[in-house]
Amino acid sequence: MIGVAVFGASGYAGAELIRLIAGHPEMELRHVSAGRMAGKRLGEVLPSIGDYCAELILADGTAPLADGVDLAFTALPHGAAAATVARLLAQGCRVVDLSADFRHPNLNNYRDAYGTDHPQPALTTQAVYGLSEWQREAIGSTNLVANPGCYPTSVLLPLLPLLQTDLLNCDRIIVDAKSGTSGAGRSPKQTTLFCEINESIAAYGLPRHRHQWEMEEWAENLGCNRPISIPFTPHIIPMTRGMLATIYLHGNDPSSWHAILDQRYADEPFVRVLPAGQLPATGGVAGSNRCDIGIVVRDDHNAVLVSCIDNLLKGAAGQALQNANLMFALDEQSGLSPLGVWP
Amino acid sequence: MIGVAVFGASGYAGAELIRLIAGHPEMELRHVSAGRMAGKRLGEVLPSIGDYCAELILADGTAPLADGVDLAFTALPHGAAAATVARLLAQGCRVVDLSADFRHPNLNNYRDAYGTDHPQPALTTQAVYGLSEWQREAIGSTNLVANPGCYPTSVLLPLLPLLQTDLLNCDRIIVDAKSGTSGAGRSPKQTTLFCEINESIAAYGLPRHRHQWEMEEWAENLGCNRPISIPFTPHIIPMTRGMLATIYLHGNDPSSWHAILDQRYADEPFVRVLPAGQLPATGGVAGSNRCDIGIVVRDDHNAVLVSCIDNLLKGAAGQALQNANLMFALDEQSGLSPLGVWP
Amino acid sequence: MIGVAVFGASGYAGAELIRLIAGHPEMELRHVSAGRMAGKRLGEVLPSIGDYCAELILADGTAPLADGVDLAFTALPHGAAAATVARLLAQGCRVVDLSADFRHPNLNNYRDAYGTDHPQPALTTQAVYGLSEWQREAIGSTNLVANPGCYPTSVLLPLLPLLQTDLLNCDRIIVDAKSGTSGAGRSPKQTTLFCEINESIAAYGLPRHRHQWEMEEWAENLGCNRPISIPFTPHIIPMTRGMLATIYLHGNDPSSWHAILDQRYADEPFVRVLPAGQLPATGGVAGSNRCDIGIVVRDDHNAVLVSCIDNLLKGAAGQALQNANLMFALDEQSGLSPLGVWP
Amino acid sequence: MIGVAVFGASGYAGAELIRLIAGHPEMELRHVSAGRMAGKRLGEVLPSIGDYCAELILADGTAPLADGVDLAFTALPHGAAAATVARLLAQGCRVVDLSADFRHPNLNNYRDAYGTDHPQPALTTQAVYGLSEWQREAIGSTNLVANPGCYPTSVLLPLLPLLQTDLLNCDRIIVDAKSGTSGAGRSPKQTTLFCEINESIAAYGLPRHRHQWEMEEWAENLGCNRPISIPFTPHIIPMTRGMLATIYLHGNDPSSWHAILDQRYADEPFVRVLPAGQLPATGGVAGSNRCDIGIVVRDDHNAVLVSCIDNLLKGAAGQALQNANLMFALDEQSGLSPLGVWP
Repeated sequence: MIGVAVFGASGYAGAELIRLIAGHPEMELRHVSAGRMAGKRLGEVLPSIGDYCAELILADGTAPLADGVDLAFTALPHGAAAATVARLLAQGCRVVDLSADFRHPNLNNYRDAYGTDHPQPALTTQAVYGLSEWQREAIGSTNLVANPGCYPTSVLLPLLPLLQTDLLNCDRIIVDAKSGTSGAGRSPKQTTLFCEINESIAAYGLPRHRHQWEMEEWAENLGCNRPISIPFTPHIIPMTRGMLATIYLHGNDPSSWHAILDQRYADEPFVRVLPAGQLPATGGVAGSNRCDIGIVVRDDHNAVLVSCIDNLLKGAAGQALQNANLMFALDEQSGLSPLGVWP
Repeated sequence: MIGVAVFGASGYAGAELIRLIAGHPEMELRHVSAGRMAGKRLGEVLPSIGDYCAELILADGTAPLADGVDLAFTALPHGAAAATVARLLAQGCRVVDLSADFRHPNLNNYRDAYGTDHPQPALTTQAVYGLSEWQREAIGSTNLVANPGCYPTSVLLPLLPLLQTDLLNCDRIIVDAKSGTSGAGRSPKQTTLFCEINESIAAYGLPRHRHQWEMEEWAENLGCNRPISIPFTPHIIPMTRGMLATIYLHGNDPSSWHAILDQRYADEPFVRVLPAGQLPATGGVAGSNRCDIGIVVRDDHNAVLVSCIDNLLKGAAGQALQNANLMFALDEQSGLSPLGVWP
Repeated sequence: MIGVAVFGASGYAGAELIRLIAGHPEMELRHVSAGRMAGKRLGEVLPSIGDYCAELILADGTAPLADGVDLAFTALPHGAAAATVARLLAQGCRVVDLSADFRHPNLNNYRDAYGTDHPQPALTTQAVYGLSEWQREAIGSTNLVANPGCYPTSVLLPLLPLLQTDLLNCDRIIVDAKSGTSGAGRSPKQTTLFCEINESIAAYGLPRHRHQWEMEEWAENLGCNRPISIPFTPHIIPMTRGMLATIYLHGNDPSSWHAILDQRYADEPFVRVLPAGQLPATGGVAGSNRCDIGIVVRDDHNAVLVSCIDNLLKGAAGQALQNANLMFALDEQSGLSPLGVWP
Repeated sequence: MIGVAVFGASGYAGAELIRLIAGHPEMELRHVSAGRMAGKRLGEVLPSIGDYCAELILADGTAPLADGVDLAFTALPHGAAAATVARLLAQGCRVVDLSADFRHPNLNNYRDAYGTDHPQPALTTQAVYGLSEWQREAIGSTNLVANPGCYPTSVLLPLLPLLQTDLLNCDRIIVDAKSGTSGAGRSPKQTTLFCEINESIAAYGLPRHRHQWEMEEWAENLGCNRPISIPFTPHIIPMTRGMLATIYLHGNDPSSWHAILDQRYADEPFVRVLPAGQLPATGGVAGSNRCDIGIVVRDDHNAVLVSCIDNLLKGAAGQALQNANLMFALDEQSGLSPLGVWP
């Protein structure tokens, strides 16, 4: 059994990691940690786990690791994660970091997006960006995976296969994304109270959300090999889980794009390209590690891509476990479901 | 025009008071106050008011009143409200207090429910409990109305007419109530985050919620003239507005109870007794100042009453304005709608 | 008093019309009509009206009009509305038609959008497109207003002032819109069941939603005076009311666009341009007849406009009443609130 | 591998059965059937299954079974289920019937609850009522399990241990239950449209919901061995999944009741008794097969029990699979999770 630690265990991504570990035949939860909630029993802070590890006490972030931890998931705020990751690596743990801290090989992008110099620049060269379907080999041989952001995952999966062709007009991409509220985290804030979110929708993060740097950097690295602009508008909507990206593309021969996507992902268990002209809904992927992609051609030069993920699974904890499976040479699907929990 | 002040203007009840004042032909908003938000423009903290009084600056609670304030609504936490009310009365304002501070002529009940001695015991004798349909005369001649709690309003309106008869077995009352989340207020708390409330229901406040003392005290004072026990379980459900009370009653001749309710409220614009056997939904009263009441007879000794209100209107701001209308001898319905905003 | 008829009174727009008429000082509801629900009392089919006109019996669509009807609102399916409108006009009623039947002076667009030849082509020349803030004079002197669609209202209000300049690159407009579910109507369909909509978001209507023809026709007629393409993707989200349009614009000098919008709407009671850089949420306009508009500049050539309306008010019943006020030379704001019902 | 058929595969319980079968290591889906949807691919009607069995064609209910079906789940309307069950048993299938058709050994109760004589009275003696934790042995040796209703499951699990003592006053039980909307099924009805359910709560089914007969019959059979009355009021609330029962009990020594429940369920993987005084929320059990039970003592004679289940899992498909595991002598927990999908 692989011994596992979860940092940030009292948050929403942490809760989802713990549920997945509970269902994983080769993993065992040995250490949980949380900031504000340190000292409480895990069962006190997570209403959903029943008796599973309910008596584990939440350590604070600096407490010594429990024995036998081989793998750590760090679901901590950016900035705070880096030091914890460094310490864990030094102790011989392999780490999947769900924060933004190691997503930017280009440290200028990190500084521009997060407004501060990188706290552990040396480590960034070790990190592998964990977009599982695009980085399998590198993930399999690293000790540190930088788990992608939810928005970048939802945008890069549909976009990369097309960016690798010369069919897109790369100056005319527009991304309009919509997210459930769990992405905003569990810290008490007026803006995410039930009555502020319910029965309302709003755009936020303009003119430039942090994830735009991440999308652009990895669209370049994995897709088109040149700088690219991906103007991006996120919205928050009244649901807990789910993320939908509507991607407006201009280019040549859009009627060929469906086949390109379809072929690229034909054998992927967690990426599904719908038949041409059909569009996905987030309700169908909630509770699954799946990304569903649809494409509709508008005219000779324009098409609309729509992708759906569960922001806590393929957009966070699910992809993190997929990456851990790759790191430890386990079945990539172990502990993960391609079926949604619906309705 | 009656000059009006709203204390607690940045909260949910405050927002609703301001909307109602805006639509009231004889009232003018002259002073707004808020704790944490003091110093901000009203338009910054309330997304809904458009240009109406948007440039008013939120005073802090101790700032001098603007000129020409004849009436103040105080929507402050219990305990904090009492001192403000005392000051306002001393300055010649008439006050409708939406807190719990003046709802208990029996100061022992106040102490038991709120865990502290009453901060202004002398003033409590001046206050009139503002259950509008049952206290019109007294409200019309007081300077201080204690606006009822949302749960007590939803329970007392259907219950009082029956308590005035000798038909009920007063030892066998049970109240199971369900509330939208706006009643929990706008202060940031983990427990009222969108993701904690959405897709979940829970009971809370057991074994004895504060409003049980209020229900019991006023059931006695206005209903049966003797001590009475009203075991009460509130629940919080994933909606913003609305409150439904399911009241289990045991007694004699329940088939006569519908007529008793129907006659009592026949001429009331804001209380509607549905035809026998029909039950209301909160969706039909949201946005209105109405209380809808239904009754179903179960057998020779048992019946179920169901009442619905909008917790922010008949359960808070709406009844407060109704009481203000009575205090100033205006049309009781002025500024209030008996129609819901539906769907 | 103006006698009013509502056709389609049992639907969501019908319910909202009746609520507004109830609050209008110069209107009186005299006739209600519904298809499937004919023969029922109004109070049976609308849970929200309390005692207001609850005893009116829903006529079927072909029954003779009650006496004294001066104004009819027709909230019927497209295609079905035209014949009713013709009959009403022939009887001397003035009509605000909420269907799509009279929105297209260009009958080719009607045919392309609705898949059938127009049933009353002669009447279309009489109709005035009721985008209130842009057509006041014409509305004041017509007997037939074609009330705009919800999506076109949310898009044309922010777009028209800019289309009237030569600053926009009209080949680069993209509209991504999100709607609450009430726009889908009250007829039972699997796709709009609670469990299908809740906790999900989806795009629909691609490659070309019917409202795109309407937007393009009126963007030309009222804005740029030449054919224009407005690629448009609607989404349905889990809330009842509210519509948000995110409009991606490319052109020259976007830093000047806020002032253009601000000046155009400075005196409009129901259109509010937020300070530069601020963005609206639908929660702030729900229950109001307001359209809130925000703009964020992205770079030297790109900006994002965001507009919010309540799809049942400024997007349907509210604008319909605003137009009726104009037709009858009443105060344009009569019976309408610029404040939202929040939260 | 056990070959499995699902009748009613296009509904909400059917979808959940298929998800569970997909995750069961010893089951294989071989036959799916649906009424209105017959002829479609499974992937067309269930948005959540991805590629899992997506190409299976929905048979109609009378089509011959696919080869190798050992076990059938029938999620059909009451009345319609009985004939299908009879046919399946005759073909040698073992059946878990999720309808009400075989829940009533007392056929008078069936007739009173469902308004018709039982269509297959002879079969009823073969059926075992599948409240898993109370009927393990009988379930293990039958070919026909009558899967309990969601409300009875949520009420019997907390109630039976206490009914087996002589501590309860059996004339003073009251059950107030609240359900998510998925229990109302996937057939298009106006009453379960998103806009009718969202932001509203209502009681229904009074004076006597069908499940009351079931609760009372099995409270007698498995609990107190004498006729008992369980007055029951269900409510529908705006969420998809989840059911909470608030059970008001009167009797002797309520401070001893927690221990009775705790001991009875100490070793049960899917029933959890919370520490005394703590109460569960449905959000914590959604997505799990767990029933959480809390108890609060009110005074010397009164206590409140609160139980929570996911109505589609422990209240339908989950318990059905638990029963199938028992019938086939598999690990009772196989394919089922005690952890919820949260948030």
